[in-house]
Amino acid sequence: APSNHDHDTLVLIDQTRLPADFVTVECGTVEQVFDAIVRLVVRGAPAIGIAAGYGVCLARDADGNRSPMAYLEAIDRLAGSRPTAVNLFWALERMRTVVESVGAGDGLHHRLVAEAIAIHDEDRQMCKAMGRHGASLLSECESVMTHCNAGGLAASMWGTALAPIYHLHQSGHTLNVFADETRPLLQGARLTAWELSQAGIPVTVLTDSMAGSLLRTGRIDAAIVGADRIAANGDVANKIGTYPLAVLASYHNVPFYVAAPSSTFDPKLASGDLIPIEQRHRDEVARPYGVPLVPDAAKVINPAFDVTPAELVTALISERGVVRHPNREKLAKHFEQA
Amino acid sequence: APSNHDHDTLVLIDQTRLPADFVTVECGTVEQVFDAIVRLVVRGAPAIGIAAGYGVCLARDADGNRSPMAYLEAIDRLAGSRPTAVNLFWALERMRTVVESVGAGDGLHHRLVAEAIAIHDEDRQMCKAMGRHGASLLSECESVMTHCNAGGLAASMWGTALAPIYHLHQSGHTLNVFADETRPLLQGARLTAWELSQAGIPVTVLTDSMAGSLLRTGRIDAAIVGADRIAANGDVANKIGTYPLAVLASYHNVPFYVAAPSSTFDPKLASGDLIPIEQRHRDEVARPYGVPLVPDAAKVINPAFDVTPAELVTALISERGVVRHPNREKLAKHFEQA
Repeated sequence: APSNHDHDTLVLIDQTRLPADFVTVECGTVEQVFDAIVRLVVRGAPAIGIAAGYGVCLARDADGNRSPMAYLEAIDRLAGSRPTAVNLFWALERMRTVVESVGAGDGLHHRLVAEAIAIHDEDRQMCKAMGRHGASLLSECESVMTHCNAGGLAASMWGTALAPIYHLHQSGHTLNVFADETRPLLQGARLTAWELSQAGIPVTVLTDSMAGSLLRTGRIDAAIVGADRIAANGDVANKIGTYPLAVLASYHNVPFYVAAPSSTFDPKLASGDLIPIEQRHRDEVARPYGVPLVPDAAKVINPAFDVTPAELVTALISERGVVRHPNREKLAKHFEQA
Repeated sequence: APSNHDHDTLVLIDQTRLPADFVTVECGTVEQVFDAIVRLVVRGAPAIGIAAGYGVCLARDADGNRSPMAYLEAIDRLAGSRPTAVNLFWALERMRTVVESVGAGDGLHHRLVAEAIAIHDEDRQMCKAMGRHGASLLSECESVMTHCNAGGLAASMWGTALAPIYHLHQSGHTLNVFADETRPLLQGARLTAWELSQAGIPVTVLTDSMAGSLLRTGRIDAAIVGADRIAANGDVANKIGTYPLAVLASYHNVPFYVAAPSSTFDPKLASGDLIPIEQRHRDEVARPYGVPLVPDAAKVINPAFDVTPAELVTALISERGVVRHPNREKLAKHFEQA
């Protein structure tokens, strides 16, 4: 789990500082949690949802008191932190439902803490189940590619896309993982390489631009990524660079898998075109680590996510199982309420 | 032209320092030119060839004298600097032919200087002609993409892939250029953005991972790149990331153009599989600007080039004209001696 807590502070690993420094950030206020999400101290769709749940529990009104109004304001504030990952809104809606159903009174804070813990616990179970289901797809593989970080740092426990890799490793089948560095913020180089190395899983980092020629060698048996939001038709928003990787995997007949829990599925959005894509600051591209690379006269684009059409997804792995060649009908059935 | 000279020194813009610093490096010895090529002070296939030609003229033997043996040793030394761009070997063979045909004597140094100047002058003419021929392909375009730097810094004058863009700009038709930053060494962000901005051409920088979603928007009318070596069958070695861009352009029905002078064509190699691909140091990926990103336990791959199969090339632009859908027969005819 990337986040830890007592019930008056939320403790987060500062993912902006890894792998050089392993330091934590303590959040005692909603505003500090908001800032941590915006600055990517905590990132990864499930982890953002978990952090937001705990974050709501920190809310106080202007007089320093807990109140339904303070919680609702916290929910609205945190909902404005990042637009793309739907797990954030999903977790906040669960918290809102508790506020609205319990109302004022001594029990509310404890009910909210219990809900935040439940969101976290359920995520662990979902990661574990995705590991088991995904392992069946990767069981014949020797080498797989991934993009960005969809591991334990991005969720709880094993993460999403890395969960099958951890599952197989535990059962004695260790894959070689090739990790795209994932510009601009290098979550693949910094976070995926770090957490897999910690686990004793061999990992090789490449620039995003090397994925094409690596796939062309025939050495890669599958690509597997996480997701920030999956539309009703199966279109997948994920870290920028996922879509070209899906096209390249398809071109080279390499299976392209997406692993995401049901909290990432957004049945209200008909297709990926409707997913809001966060545009981030030019300096993430133009001044990495403060080094001025791009002349001021040049423009920069910096979309944080892209959308991969469902037809490029060989299979979706959720905690409920595997959906091959996902489409609207299959996903509606897969994610329907039990 | 990226390189300038009197006949006892070779003056190079230090391309590793752009755009933050515009500084030059003076090379007074063959070893200094070798080092400048290895360290990418000068880079770009035609520019390496030009620098190597001038570099040979600096050769002295152990006693400080000019001699055919010293020139031949310089040629062998410089040929070991970088393996992929064939212009290097092409220029050195021209210098070798002069040494072998003139032999010892007072005239040799002046003949070598004249040959180095001729290589440089011919490159200017070739760039100008590529600008004219390529402009015919881009004349209906509003926005084009490019990868790495194949402009004036990589060759002389207008460069190769950027030559049609400069040509059109001079004739009053200014394109919007989208430049891949081109990890690991960021020649797109640092060099292409710099030289186009200097020329007043609007340029937008994106990470390599953003090219796919940008192409998907339909805003890009063509992609155009340079080349480090073109095999007899039309396969193109160019900066790592060119091949995935070609696949993505094809997938989105965007024309993919390669601009390169005849000095980049290598008829002795049957196909791109035979082109030697330089593998560079892991720190270019793992420690950009000295910042440790990749944990030591992780491996890194760093091929400097990839190979794009001829079938993904919509047209090749050389100083002789345009070859649509290049293949072995068309290229043999296009590049045959006049």
